[in-house]
Amino acid sequence: MGACRGVIKRIAPAAEVIDITHGIPPQHVLQGALVLANTLPYMPEGVHLAVVDPGVGGPRKPVALSDRGGRRYVGPDNGLLVVAAERLGGIEAAVELANEEYMLRPVSATFHGRDIFAPAAAHLARGVPLADLGPALAADELHRLEVPKPDVGSRRVRATVLFVDRFGNIQLNLTSADLERVGIVPGTTVEVEAGFERYYAIAARTFAEVRRGDIVLYEDAYRNIALAINQGSAADMFTARVGEEFRLAAAAR
Amino acid sequence: MGACRGVIKRIAPAAEVIDITHGIPPQHVLQGALVLANTLPYMPEGVHLAVVDPGVGGPRKPVALSDRGGRRYVGPDNGLLVVAAERLGGIEAAVELANEEYMLRPVSATFHGRDIFAPAAAHLARGVPLADLGPALAADELHRLEVPKPDVGSRRVRATVLFVDRFGNIQLNLTSADLERVGIVPGTTVEVEAGFERYYAIAARTFAEVRRGDIVLYEDAYRNIALAINQGSAADMFTARVGEEFRLAAAAR
Amino acid sequence: MGACRGVIKRIAPAAEVIDITHGIPPQHVLQGALVLANTLPYMPEGVHLAVVDPGVGGPRKPVALSDRGGRRYVGPDNGLLVVAAERLGGIEAAVELANEEYMLRPVSATFHGRDIFAPAAAHLARGVPLADLGPALAADELHRLEVPKPDVGSRRVRATVLFVDRFGNIQLNLTSADLERVGIVPGTTVEVEAGFERYYAIAARTFAEVRRGDIVLYEDAYRNIALAINQGSAADMFTARVGEEFRLAAAAR
Repeated sequence: MGACRGVIKRIAPAAEVIDITHGIPPQHVLQGALVLANTLPYMPEGVHLAVVDPGVGGPRKPVALSDRGGRRYVGPDNGLLVVAAERLGGIEAAVELANEEYMLRPVSATFHGRDIFAPAAAHLARGVPLADLGPALAADELHRLEVPKPDVGSRRVRATVLFVDRFGNIQLNLTSADLERVGIVPGTTVEVEAGFERYYAIAARTFAEVRRGDIVLYEDAYRNIALAINQGSAADMFTARVGEEFRLAAAAR
Repeated sequence: MGACRGVIKRIAPAAEVIDITHGIPPQHVLQGALVLANTLPYMPEGVHLAVVDPGVGGPRKPVALSDRGGRRYVGPDNGLLVVAAERLGGIEAAVELANEEYMLRPVSATFHGRDIFAPAAAHLARGVPLADLGPALAADELHRLEVPKPDVGSRRVRATVLFVDRFGNIQLNLTSADLERVGIVPGTTVEVEAGFERYYAIAARTFAEVRRGDIVLYEDAYRNIALAINQGSAADMFTARVGEEFRLAAAAR
Repeated sequence: MGACRGVIKRIAPAAEVIDITHGIPPQHVLQGALVLANTLPYMPEGVHLAVVDPGVGGPRKPVALSDRGGRRYVGPDNGLLVVAAERLGGIEAAVELANEEYMLRPVSATFHGRDIFAPAAAHLARGVPLADLGPALAADELHRLEVPKPDVGSRRVRATVLFVDRFGNIQLNLTSADLERVGIVPGTTVEVEAGFERYYAIAARTFAEVRRGDIVLYEDAYRNIALAINQGSAADMFTARVGEEFRLAAAAR
């Protein structure tokens, strides 16, 4: 990561680099995409460089995008950038990073962050137009991630683990509207089934409403539903993995 | 954390953000308070934003303080800020962050770092007076942490683990004066009892004075006593937890 | 680490601090030296502060160097700086950091990063000449690390683990030329022996060429050979330790 920062500062010494996170686990493209989309509304408009790139060196294209809100994005075309760009005004233009003038050469086979993406971001920050970086791509040519949809029944919802954050909180593919449809609102006791295990959680607005050690189902600060242990780690307790299913229902009284 | 940095730069683009640490484990308010108090004397005077906030959304107040040395502090009123402010000149003024003009609205239930504390810090950095952020609080209304006191006997000292640092060194609530009272000075062999286990450590000024793998009792660079393994991790060996008791005595010759 | 950053900004407020990494495990001086040498060519020329310092407080000297390419280095004389300085133009001058005017006093016994190295780096950044920091040292007086050499036979190579990176990739003391001498080129199936275990790896140019879970032997972006698991952690599978031996040979067809 230091190398990317160095490459940017050599090309665009006046650019200010603001780190969003270095905490996305390797290969977790969907987590990267969601964290980027969640965080960017709070960041100054700029050139947003994101690299979670398990397919580096393969057929996935290096790309740069602009959205209709004035932000630009640089990274691999593996779905990492599109969720954010579509939420923040929609994709205005996209190019394949093909112009070798704006790369560090020789380009390594395994570290395009340093050799392709960081230089492209720095040149954009310096004022190089997007179109100079390579040929245009149509927005619908870009790779899109499949974000799993919950299965919301009349009394039970089947949700999927999207990712686990650094507090050990388990992010589910749910909104509070999904939970309301099965009768779960703040205050409800919730049956949580994962695999063959069953637990009881409390739907709450904040951790302050429950006891230490309670399992909590809450709407996080990005309006996603997450499962947590108050002052503990839900990920450790449930050994949750990305893609795992959780079944949630209001407990019988 | 990126979101807080982004919020600050949107409100106060000219502010320079200097990270102290992102290594405080979740919920470890006392560790956060001590690291803040230890580190601030080495930092430029500024607006110091600190967030370790297990009670977010509950009754604990969001606050800002100024000390008599010219520093300002922003964070939750859970004791995180007061240790530093009292060591660095004493509290001059305190306010509850209640003025919604200086918040991101809607304020989320679980991420006041982003929605209340970072905006308040940025507005202070821009020149907004402390008093504009909300109503004054008396210094003695602020929450204070209880820092456990050691029990120093004539031949033995009972100490408590304050926190474990990133090297695995175990920080105890002791000074070198406490150790001298029980006859422990650099060079002394020390009996260390934790639970039912007994170990031998060497009191030393530096790691260079002992062999690889030796257990070392030393005064760290902030004048606190810590227990370490030379080129290893004391935390791994002792599985030390915050609040655990260690008993120390000079070994019989 | 925050304390070092603060010390620099107090002495040289206009200096821009660019982090290379905070991910070198404690005591891993060789890893620090190699990461520094690998990364600096991508960083702006500046004053490069590096601290991996298990011998702090012992006889190892604090030093500053300049190389013939215009870079300056500050850190402990334990080999951490010399690999980079010799690769980047060669050592031009070296001094022992002995001038107390450029230290924080009192100097602690265990945190020279804060009290000696960060202040020296900041004063150099402000324009203080290297020679003012202390008496000159001859380049050949500086401590040098022994980088283990591979044993390249006619059909088999014995390599040593240099370090493990944050992806769990195992860095070996090999170049692609070493592998070619035993007939291993991209596409070759490779027998890997570690201890009493034997595995099969695939020599590849990129991860995109192999299947998920395959063991991959590849030239990384700094032209060193590393062993990885595609979308996994080789370090977890091999429980590799620095200094451990791996034996590699092209598999019989």
